[in-house]
Amino acid sequence: MILGIDIGGTTIKFGIVTEKGEILATERHDTLENTKNPEDFINLLVDISRKYIASYPQVKGIGIGVPGQLSLDRSTLVQANNLGSLNGTKIVPLLKEAFPDLIVRLENDANCTALGEMYFGGHDKDDFIMIALGTGVGGGVIVHRKLFIGAKGNAGEVGFLVVGPKRQVLENYLGQRHLTNYVKEELSKPENADNSLHSVEDLTVESVYYAAKDGNQLALNVWDYVGELIGETVVGLAHSFDVTKFIIGGGVGKAFELFKDSAEKAALSYFSSYYADTFQLLPAGCEEDTGLVGAASLVLNELEDF
Amino acid sequence: MILGIDIGGTTIKFGIVTEKGEILATERHDTLENTKNPEDFINLLVDISRKYIASYPQVKGIGIGVPGQLSLDRSTLVQANNLGSLNGTKIVPLLKEAFPDLIVRLENDANCTALGEMYFGGHDKDDFIMIALGTGVGGGVIVHRKLFIGAKGNAGEVGFLVVGPKRQVLENYLGQRHLTNYVKEELSKPENADNSLHSVEDLTVESVYYAAKDGNQLALNVWDYVGELIGETVVGLAHSFDVTKFIIGGGVGKAFELFKDSAEKAALSYFSSYYADTFQLLPAGCEEDTGLVGAASLVLNELEDF
Repeated sequence: MILGIDIGGTTIKFGIVTEKGEILATERHDTLENTKNPEDFINLLVDISRKYIASYPQVKGIGIGVPGQLSLDRSTLVQANNLGSLNGTKIVPLLKEAFPDLIVRLENDANCTALGEMYFGGHDKDDFIMIALGTGVGGGVIVHRKLFIGAKGNAGEVGFLVVGPKRQVLENYLGQRHLTNYVKEELSKPENADNSLHSVEDLTVESVYYAAKDGNQLALNVWDYVGELIGETVVGLAHSFDVTKFIIGGGVGKAFELFKDSAEKAALSYFSSYYADTFQLLPAGCEEDTGLVGAASLVLNELEDF
Repeated sequence: MILGIDIGGTTIKFGIVTEKGEILATERHDTLENTKNPEDFINLLVDISRKYIASYPQVKGIGIGVPGQLSLDRSTLVQANNLGSLNGTKIVPLLKEAFPDLIVRLENDANCTALGEMYFGGHDKDDFIMIALGTGVGGGVIVHRKLFIGAKGNAGEVGFLVVGPKRQVLENYLGQRHLTNYVKEELSKPENADNSLHSVEDLTVESVYYAAKDGNQLALNVWDYVGELIGETVVGLAHSFDVTKFIIGGGVGKAFELFKDSAEKAALSYFSSYYADTFQLLPAGCEEDTGLVGAASLVLNELEDF
């Protein structure tokens, strides 16, 4: 039994996660309210953790996911985009003080999601790269059942390979805002003046998903374009890490069936047989509470070492 | 003292290399002649090695570089483009049989060059990525003074990230043949009809280097283009590995001064301060016999572990 803590931009989620990935109890707290200063933030973590550990004394450890860059030794949140006041907070030592007998592990949230896929995604994989298509594009690289954190500790930023017709980083195409803007640009072309997507009041990636499912050609083309860009990215990553399994998650990743073919086609147009023979592109297996389950996976991964 | 063996497409080079990277004795053998079958090849390695070890009994180990893909355990040459008959040869166990008391290490040749840079390039680096611009584009990734070999053993193929205006892998722009063809295409444009490069009988990358040094604008533009493509590649690699030092080697790499500025400019146009603050692009420090010195470095890297 593990206590997972998923620190997101809007909520901090606590949850008791079993070794099978089931969530037994969970609660949410507001991020903004609880991250005004490091002291209050750590107090919240300690208080809620203490409460859960009292109810679940079998808890072996605490796994924490944060949306930001960590120190190489995984003790400290170095920099987070939306948790500015917490930059530099030594989260692990501070929690260890309160819980000296528990395993305490901190990791980047996208890396957590990757580990969560390893344990609970049903893929049974030792080596893969997770591409999380959400508000931004995050990722995690798993090599021999371990997260690859690189030279300075923040490797696997798979959304920042330069690809595509605009020679931009992947996130600048597929981050949700960018992707929506791309669709709006396409819609503004004279030949698309009659497209049914014009009638959608508040255009989102989800509307483009449903339009494509309904056979809207512009929407289908958008997903082909998404697939091509993922395909190009996957080629760079495969050659960098010698990994040929890719798991696509995140909100935009739910359109997997719509971009899978063009992504595979694009990747295979570059791959030699050494890569093509084992190449696999798969949708994420974990669907709900991936952040929480991922954070808990940190402790499982630590226990594996013993 | 180390015996280095550098197996290239045309020659097999043997050499005694000191711990300071000096080469005391060396000899070459024809590759084609000695790779017709694995038996003859291994016999050559054993015979020449025995001879050197008799003269230099201080030799601690044998380091071998090969232009191809290796097994994850580094015992076997799995696949080499130009050494077809050797595919599958268990080079390390076969040499270990002949030299049971010596360290025997096998590695991909570009990886060897990267290690050679670490020990003898004068950079004093623990983390960097080597980009070797030669006939093709090879590379090696050093993280915490170790080669990163990835999930299946052949990571760091830095020439195979998809970049640039043609959405092609780096090698398809910068491999020597491709680069020469690009220059020829540029020369065939009407506005370049008077360019002095037309008078070069057998156009090579070297002629473009000297033309640029003489102020030829087309040639200067070619190196800017080379730099841009390297810059884009470096961005993907930095985010993948969280490494921000890049060392450029190989024949084409000798034009470093001509493409450095455009490469840096391109990379910095993408980097956040996290990367930009420590970003360095450097020319290779090793100039001669990099393959041999690199192969010998394998044994030094092994000795470091003790």
